[in-house]
Formats: sequence, C-alpha cells, structure tokens
Amino acid sequence: MTKNKTSATPTLILTAAHVLTCDDQMTHYTPGAIVIADDVVVTAGAKDHILADYPDVEQMDLGQKVLMPGIVNAHTHVPMTLLRGLADDLRLDVWLMGYIMPVEREFVSPEMCYLGTKLACAELFRSGVTTFADMYYFEHEIAKATAEAGMRALCTESILKFPAPDAPSYDESLAYTREYIQEWKDHPLIVPGIAPHAPYTTTPEILKASRDIAVEYDVPFQIHLAETQREVADVQATYGDRVIQYMHKQGVFEAKTLAAHCVHVDDSEIALLAEHNVGVLHNPTSNLKLAAGVAPIQKMLNAGVNVGVATDGPASNNDLDMFEEMRLASLLAKGINYDPVALPAKETIRMATINGAKAIHMDHITGSLEAGKRADLIAVDLSPVHNAPSFRRDPNGIYSQLVYASKSTDVTDVMVNGKWTMQNKTLTTLDEAALLDEAAAFAGKVDSFLIERESSVRRKLVAIGGVEYQESFEVQAKAKIEDTAALIAKLDNKEQITILKQKHYRQYDTYFYFDAPETDFLRLREDEIIGEDGSTEDFRYRLTLIGPSDEQMHDGSLLISRSRYIAPSTHTLRFYREYFRPTSEHTVTKDRLRWRIVYHGVEFAVNIDNLTEPTLGHFLEIKSRTWSQRDARDKAKVMRDLLTLLGIEKDAVIARHYIDLSQDAT
Amino acid sequence: MTKNKTSATPTLILTAAHVLTCDDQMTHYTPGAIVIADDVVVTAGAKDHILADYPDVEQMDLGQKVLMPGIVNAHTHVPMTLLRGLADDLRLDVWLMGYIMPVEREFVSPEMCYLGTKLACAELFRSGVTTFADMYYFEHEIAKATAEAGMRALCTESILKFPAPDAPSYDESLAYTREYIQEWKDHPLIVPGIAPHAPYTTTPEILKASRDIAVEYDVPFQIHLAETQREVADVQATYGDRVIQYMHKQGVFEAKTLAAHCVHVDDSEIALLAEHNVGVLHNPTSNLKLAAGVAPIQKMLNAGVNVGVATDGPASNNDLDMFEEMRLASLLAKGINYDPVALPAKETIRMATINGAKAIHMDHITGSLEAGKRADLIAVDLSPVHNAPSFRRDPNGIYSQLVYASKSTDVTDVMVNGKWTMQNKTLTTLDEAALLDEAAAFAGKVDSFLIERESSVRRKLVAIGGVEYQESFEVQAKAKIEDTAALIAKLDNKEQITILKQKHYRQYDTYFYFDAPETDFLRLREDEIIGEDGSTEDFRYRLTLIGPSDEQMHDGSLLISRSRYIAPSTHTLRFYREYFRPTSEHTVTKDRLRWRIVYHGVEFAVNIDNLTEPTLGHFLEIKSRTWSQRDARDKAKVMRDLLTLLGIEKDAVIARHYIDLSQDAT
Repeated sequence: MTKNKTSATPTLILTAAHVLTCDDQMTHYTPGAIVIADDVVVTAGAKDHILADYPDVEQMDLGQKVLMPGIVNAHTHVPMTLLRGLADDLRLDVWLMGYIMPVEREFVSPEMCYLGTKLACAELFRSGVTTFADMYYFEHEIAKATAEAGMRALCTESILKFPAPDAPSYDESLAYTREYIQEWKDHPLIVPGIAPHAPYTTTPEILKASRDIAVEYDVPFQIHLAETQREVADVQATYGDRVIQYMHKQGVFEAKTLAAHCVHVDDSEIALLAEHNVGVLHNPTSNLKLAAGVAPIQKMLNAGVNVGVATDGPASNNDLDMFEEMRLASLLAKGINYDPVALPAKETIRMATINGAKAIHMDHITGSLEAGKRADLIAVDLSPVHNAPSFRRDPNGIYSQLVYASKSTDVTDVMVNGKWTMQNKTLTTLDEAALLDEAAAFAGKVDSFLIERESSVRRKLVAIGGVEYQESFEVQAKAKIEDTAALIAKLDNKEQITILKQKHYRQYDTYFYFDAPETDFLRLREDEIIGEDGSTEDFRYRLTLIGPSDEQMHDGSLLISRSRYIAPSTHTLRFYREYFRPTSEHTVTKDRLRWRIVYHGVEFAVNIDNLTEPTLGHFLEIKSRTWSQRDARDKAKVMRDLLTLLGIEKDAVIARHYIDLSQDAT
Repeated sequence: MTKNKTSATPTLILTAAHVLTCDDQMTHYTPGAIVIADDVVVTAGAKDHILADYPDVEQMDLGQKVLMPGIVNAHTHVPMTLLRGLADDLRLDVWLMGYIMPVEREFVSPEMCYLGTKLACAELFRSGVTTFADMYYFEHEIAKATAEAGMRALCTESILKFPAPDAPSYDESLAYTREYIQEWKDHPLIVPGIAPHAPYTTTPEILKASRDIAVEYDVPFQIHLAETQREVADVQATYGDRVIQYMHKQGVFEAKTLAAHCVHVDDSEIALLAEHNVGVLHNPTSNLKLAAGVAPIQKMLNAGVNVGVATDGPASNNDLDMFEEMRLASLLAKGINYDPVALPAKETIRMATINGAKAIHMDHITGSLEAGKRADLIAVDLSPVHNAPSFRRDPNGIYSQLVYASKSTDVTDVMVNGKWTMQNKTLTTLDEAALLDEAAAFAGKVDSFLIERESSVRRKLVAIGGVEYQESFEVQAKAKIEDTAALIAKLDNKEQITILKQKHYRQYDTYFYFDAPETDFLRLREDEIIGEDGSTEDFRYRLTLIGPSDEQMHDGSLLISRSRYIAPSTHTLRFYREYFRPTSEHTVTKDRLRWRIVYHGVEFAVNIDNLTEPTLGHFLEIKSRTWSQRDARDKAKVMRDLLTLLGIEKDAVIARHYIDLSQDAT
C-alpha cells in the first residue's frame, strides 16, 4: 500500500483485477483497489485490504480490467489533427514548405486551434491519454478547448523568429505568451508554458528571452532539439557546437526544459541532458516517418535522463495512438541495437506514465497512482481475442500484454482529475459526432484551397513564395554558327557597337512540363559564372514559369509576347521535382559567352552559346526585351541590321527555342 | 472496369464510397461497386456503371466505407496464439530454448493446433485478413480448423532434422506431409505445402527431399531464410555460401518457394530471389522484437522481388494485426534508409494484398478484386475519430489513411470465398466466447507447468536437456601451502605414490545462487586445458547443480554427501544468467595442477591450486569420490596418511570450499 495517505475524505473506491501504480517500485496489486477523494488519489492497495480499511465508501468494480495511471503523451501539436493525412510519403521540405506551412498560413486561426484540440481530445481519451504536452499557436484557445474537454495538458506557446500565424513578430509572441501564462497559471487542468520552436527557427536572443519568461513564471520551456542530422550540422556550422551544448551555452537549461526528439545526440550531450534534468520526448513514429532516424533511448535511460513517449503532431504520425508509440518504442530499441532485452515492456509503461510526467515536469501532479496525485487513470480491457490467452507466471507479463498486444481501442474508461471523461467507450465531455462534422467541413475547405492551387503550376509557385510577375515582349533571333572566333572579332567593332559588359556562364537548365494549358513550362536555371581564369566565381539559381506565348516572325526575328513568373530558386531540384510533379522533364546544358551591347541606340543581349547537352553545337543568339509590342517591332528592325553586320543571312535565322531544338535532337 | 468478366451468374453487388481493386493499375473507384457470383468476383467498377449494367442483382451498400481485397498475412504460425505473451523481452536463445521449445515439447498436440488455429482465425478476421500462410506442426488439424472457420490459407507442414512434436524423425514428417498434401490438394479454401524449417534446422538431404515433394505435387515450399546474422555466418562457415546461394545450390528454387525474413541478404542474393520468383515474407515486428534487424525491402521491391507483409507467429509479435505490420513496414523503410519517400502507403497496401498473394504463390486465387478471383474482401470504416478528417485532394490519400491512421479494429466486414465471416464486427463462423474460454484453460495448464518448473532450478535445468544425475559421497581435504615446488617434489615418491596422469587447467567457475532450499548452487565451469608449452590445448564447459549437502569431519577430512546434476554447458554464460535468473552470482578463477594418483590402493585426485580471482594464494586439495558412505570413511583414513606424507599437519586442514573462502575474502 502506498505510504502517504491524504487527509481528504474518500469518495470512491475503484477495484479491478489488476492495479498498476507506476510508483517507484512499479507496485502491482492483483486484485487491487484505488481510493479517490474527489479529484485526488488517497491510496492504492490490495483489494481486500482497501475494502477492509474503507468499508463505507462507494465502490465501482472494473472486473477483469487493468486499472493504471492515465498515459502521458509527452509531445504533440493537437490542432494538427485537422491536417492529418493532408500530405504523406513526402520529403520533409516538400511536406513542410510545400504543404503544411502554406496551409497553416491560410487556415490556422483561433477557431481552427479550438476545433482541432477538441477533436484531438476525443482521440486522446479513446487511446487512454489523460495528459498531453502541446506546442502550437493560439495556445490560449488550445488550453480553453482542453479544459472544456476535461483533459489535462501542458500547453506551450510557440515562438518563431519569423511571422507566426498568431503573431507578426517574436516580440508580439513573447508579449502574448506572458499574458497567456498569467491567465492560465493556476488552472486545475492546464499548465501553461513557452516553446521557442527549434534552434533553426529561433535566435540566441529568442532563446534567452523565452528562458527568462519560463524562469520568471516557473513554467516549462519546450523546444524541438537535434531532430535531424542537418540541424546538427547547421548548428555546428553556425555556432561551433553540437545542439545540446549550444542550448546549454544559451542558459536554456536554467528553465524546466523539455526537449522533443533528441535523435542525434552524442554521449556528452546525453550527460548534459541528465545533469540538467532536461526531459526528452521520444517520438518514434514521427522520427521514422519523416526519416529523421532513431533516438538512442536506451542510452538516455541508462544515463538517468527522464524520457517520455509521444506521438508528435498527427500530421506526421498520423494519429495520437500512444499504444502504437509504446509498442514501437520497445520494438525499435531492440531491433536497432540488436538487443532483444532492450527497453522491456515494464520500462516502456514507466516511460509512458510516470517518466513521461517527469519529462514534462508534471510528475508532482500526475503519472502514477499514489497518494496525493490527481486522480488521472484508465481502465484497459485485456479480454479481446488479440490479447488471449493471458499467462500469469511472469509478474511482468501484464506490462508485456499492454505493450505488445493491447490496442488503444481496448481502453474502456478514462478519468481525469477525478472526473470520468470516457465510460464504456462513450465520451462524456465531448460531442464526437458534431466534432467530426466540423472537421469534415474544415477539411473540405482545405481540400478546395489545395485542389485549386494544385490545378495551377502558377499558384503552386506562388504558394512557396518570392515570386515576381513580368508580362513582356521579346524579340529574338538565333543562328547556327561554325566559326565563333570570326563572330567574336566582328563584335569588336568599336564604331558601331558599344560593349557594356561581358560575362561567361555555364548554364544548366531543367525544364518541367505539365498537362496544363495555362503553363508553357517551368524552368530551373543554374548559372555558373565563370571567371577569366576559367574557375567558377559564383552561382545563381532562378526559377522561371513561362506562360503560353504568342509568337510571330517579324523582319526575320521572332517576336514573342508572354507572361513570366520569376522566383529565386532556394530549394533543390529534387524539391521542385517532388513538389511540382511535372509530367515530363528535359535538360539543356550550354556554355554561354554573353555580351550586353548597344547598337544604333538599342540595347541587345548577344550570346554565343555552345550547347553541350544535348550536343547541338554553337549558336549566335540576340535578344531584347521590352514592355511594348510596338517597341519590340522597332527593335526587330534594328536587330535585322545587326545580324547583317555580324554576317548572318536572313534565311539562316532559326525561329526556335533551344529547348525545342534539344527535344528534336533527343 | 476490369476487362475480363466471368460467365457466372451474378448473385450480389456490393457498393461503397471507395473500391480499391489492387489490380495492376491499383484502380480506385469512388464510389465503386463489386459484382459477385457466389464465390467469385465477376467485375469491379464505378458504382453508376455497375448498377446500370446489372440492374436485377441483389445490392448491399457499405456506405462510406472502403471496400478492398482481404489482407494476406504472408507468414505466421497460427497455433502460437496459444503461446502469446508466454515469455517476452528475452534473448532469442533464452526465449526459444528456455521457454518456447520446452512448452512446445509438452503441449503441442493436434488439439492444441486445432484450438490455436480457430483462435487465430477469430483475430485474423477481426483485422481484415482473408488469407494467411502458416508453418507449424499437425498442419492437417490447422487446415481443418481453418476450413471450418471459412478462412483461406496456405498451410505448410514443418520438417526438422530433429524430432518434432508431430513426428519422431524427418522421414516420418515427410511421409505425413505426402499424405496431408494428397488429402487437402483440391480443397476450395486450403492450399497445402511443405516447410523445411530453416537452414540451421535441416540438412541438404531434407531440403532436396522437401523440394521433390513440392515439385511432385506442385505445392508451395516455405522456409525461414537469412533471419539473423548468426545464421548467415553459420551457413557460410558450414557450406561456404551465403544463405540464398546455399539454397539455390540445393535446387530449392525449383519449387514455388516462399522465404520468410530475408533480413540479411546482399544484392546478389536479392537478384537470385528475383530471378527465381521466390516470394519474400517481411515480418517487421518480429524482426525488431527478436532483434534480428530490418530487411532491405525497398531494395527487394526495386529488384522486382514479390514481397509480402506478415506478422510471424503471435509468440514473437505478439498479435496478428496486419494494420500494425503495414504501418511499421512503411515507417521502417523510411526511417532506416533516411528516405521519407521509401515504401509509400500505396506500395504497402499492394504488398499486403496482391503482392502478398504473389509472394505466397496464390495470386491466381486471391489478393485483388478482379474478374475470376475468389470473392475475398473486407470493408474498412474510415469514420472513427482517429482517422478524421479525410482529405481527397491526393488520390493516394486513401492508401495513406489505411496505412498510417486506420486500425485493425476499423475493419467491420469480411468475406472469404463469397461468404461473410464477419458482419458489423460480429464473427459469423466462430464462437469467440467459447474459444476464449478454451484458450484460458490451456494457458492455465501452461502456467502451472512453467510455475512448477520455475520454482525449481533442477526442473529448469532438466527442461533444457542433457542432464545426468549423481548421488555421491565425497571425501576431501584442503590446506593452504606456501612452497608448491616442495610439495610437488614430495608427490614424486615412486615407492608410495603411483601417478596415473597429470593435467594443467585454468578454471573459470561461476556460481549462481538462488533463494531455493533444495538447491545449494549451480556452477558453470569453464576449463582451459593447458599444454606443456603453456598454450591452451582444449576447452571443456560443464554445468553442475549441487543439491544441499550433508557435511561432517572425519579423521580431519571433510566427508560430504550430496546430489549433483551434471550437464554439458552448450549455451553461453549470458544465456544461463538470463534463463536461471540467479539471486546472486560469484566467480572463482584458479590455475590447477592436477594429479590422479593411487596411494595405498586408493585412487585420489590431488590438486595444487593457485586461486587468482580473488587472490587467495596456493592450496593443496585432495579428493576422492565414492557411492558408499562406508567406503568414504575408509578413504578418509587413507587420506589422513597421505596428508602426513605430504607434510600437512592435521590442524592445517581447512574444512571449507573454495567458493566459501572466496566469499569470505570479497
């Protein structure tokens, strides 16, 4: 029997075939009983003893079920239930920057956060969770929905160095967070906190300011740390430290810190986490699904780090099922370390209950069935066929049944803070049907938004930002040449031609084609700027979306009218390929000598191009761009003279683009 | 609409919001319909078209659900449902040789296989499986129970080189298998087959004889291959080949082969598997749980290998939940390869349906909803809160919902061979409550057996085999000595002492202690036999269980009566530690010079021991063993004289065991 009893008057005794306390000794009573006084646990013990000690208290028998502490989902983003399954099987950058962030920019609102949280609470209750740790935007709405659902949570407000859905700047986020913490500080169900998002989305100033708020109000400080190898490399490149060392130097660990992920941490970092009582939040599904890797959990546990288990947000999971996470945590620890005794089931149950509570700095409130803790508990039915039969030889068999064979759907009853939130699989605080209807309506809007965007390459380009629009007229002429030296000599005609500048490029062009009438193609151009000594001096990446063009011949030149959208190309070719999903793709590589000249008062670009892939040989190309069709026609006439000056006959002019010549050739 | 229609008369049309056919193009009709004629699929198509084409056929609408082919669980051992959770979080050898095999020896019977199969069928239907591939004993009973349940299965009979629960020799197993195949060959639900267990449990002769039977009857040949690194190393050491090459050389791939696991296969082996159309059965949970590793599934798929997904037996999983396996298959492929686009959900659904059917050589019967296939299908409900909301922008989103968010408990209806086996989550062919009762009774018997065994170190020792019992009387004397050279010189007394042989050992003794009155200790002795040049000539490992002894002094010597159980020590110290779980453990290391001598017609062992760990110095030890107490007393008198001859005074004799001296010292 647990040693300390509270002085409160008992109001309810729960009895069951198994009571797992998740206290320090992992005491297991079979059969067992829990005595509750309103919202607090009075004591846990053997059924016979408890019934003898408390003869006049109302009893409720849960039969053959397992009564245990409610599960702690130690890291999630609950409103993202509303983005579940939005986009999957994508690389992190395509997923995040192509889908999640554009949709968040458009749809994250107080109403969305409130609805998403209630939907999440329904799912969380159904899988036996009584406490979760959240990190998102509009945390006030999340706390409100959580409290209304009768759920317990640590709700930490995100701080970013760039504009967030709920604040245009981090100063405003910090101000919002102060106000939010003050409002919720003494709530019986909610613990407020602050969450600078990650090393790569914050600055040392933001980290310190956030830590100061956490210390001032004595609230938890949550952050994503060491999730990917790239993050580790970037922090090392920028600050010269590994991620945990960097955080330590910012004084972050002076706060009650929770660190999500910690996939890529070495032994010295693990020692730092242990020394500073930093809770680690292990998200095995999300880390696999986004291909971050597998966190060294067994090492952390050996070092004495408090590790909790978590689902992460349902957009990268895609659910909030802690039974799946527990199972995966144990399986992965074994399989990855080639050690079948790693993370045994009992240890995993501890991580999902009391150690999770420790990791999120809430173990004084919840995580075990011990005197003085809040009455947060669940009943799990072991009778379904997928868990039959039950062996009782090994006292740890009960943990093994829960971790390796039980499903979240075996949870039948949930109590938070002394109040039932689910009984016999019926939710008592939430209108699930109404929530599902509202969620469907929300998804319909997101679907429409994305379907409209996806139907247009232009809208997809705009969605990832930085686009500049041009509507222009262009006049251009092209001719195959054999003797480039002779042509260059003719350009050196100081009487008629003024050379403004000269450059040498190597150009790698990738053309994406689509089955879309409004789009001609999307071109990714990589320019290597070649110096006089032949070395690469600089790079330039540009993305150009070309609309359908209107082309006509005029004075032997091609007159082109078209719309162009130009954006800096900040992602990789692979990103654009996976994001835009072109129906076909072609590449053209050329060596370009470019002159910008003035001839008869008109500015022209003159290119001598050597097409190397496919091998098409040398071309002269002359171009000029303008915003007036009439001006373009005038320039075409001047261009005719220039071509003659350079020795190009009228019938030698080719009215084709390189990409078309290239496709003819391949 | 699928191209081929059968000529059978349609009897039923099923309609649903989504019909996934899992045909070559992964055609998805939304809404869709399936036309069935008794036990066969007539066609699948868009709902409107089907209803127009088949106006007079009975209709059944499954509403918003997903209608899809039944899932193929491509490798399992169904009767092992009855061993689920028997022993977990153990190393493979402790798990298998300490628990599973001793229990199987005792409990595997036709009745156990029949009951375990029915229990498994209940669980399998509940998780949407309509076909499984089994490998166990008494396959006739398994086939019978499966057919009675209305389930489809490939049932392959195990062949082992040592006695199996259903046959004392492999000859008899082969004869049983022939008879079994003949009996079940034309059954509408059962495909019989043969299953030599694994490379390490068979011989080249068994492999060839099994292949001959598989080829003769044109039935599948199932085997476990390349599951662990150790198996690969052992096959290489024995046969000089990697596992798949070894199998290929035995001609195994002339049969329709299914290979479970293939965790440790290289590129050349993958090429061989692809070339010979060997189906690979991927068991992600089992491979992690037993710490075998992670199979290179994406590589195999790229090479064109037919890969199915499977649960393996429920003793190493611990359930038969294919939704968990699908999810884990996709997650692992991504996480292990640091590639978030690996094994996308659509590919996983393909693996769990049509590719699984191909892998087990049953795709002519099942695995897709196409004209001519058997009507094996399931309905999955996407409405539960853990799968809300549903996005419809991405046509592959439906597969993502099934793999990443659906649970096996979302399966509502199951049809096998045109007959409903589950409707609205109610099983129609099995009495689940009765099965659960029978399973509980079975588990009770196993629990009693193991609890009794576990209560006794002796029974645990006997359970792992090879034990020999001795009840003996021993007379022994021991004395601390300083000058070993002088003592050795005294032994060289040819008049009185005949030296029979002399040996030099280094002995490493580990003593396990237990809180068990019947047991004194269990000793693991490792002898290094040292040659004249000081090198180690040989090793010997022995396990000795010493019962409580009766000790008395007689003529200055210790007279000991005790029982001993001796067994060859064939496992590692780690195995014995994990298997016996001693309450404490002590080690003694010594250098032993041993003479076997005859003195006054009595044979004695004379040891000069240098105790090096703990450092206790040099001792003389004289021993003789007999089966008579009287003889022991007579020998004690002779021993007194021998001690005097060797210069040992009566009061210098120590009546203690080394282990006791050692414990005093530490």
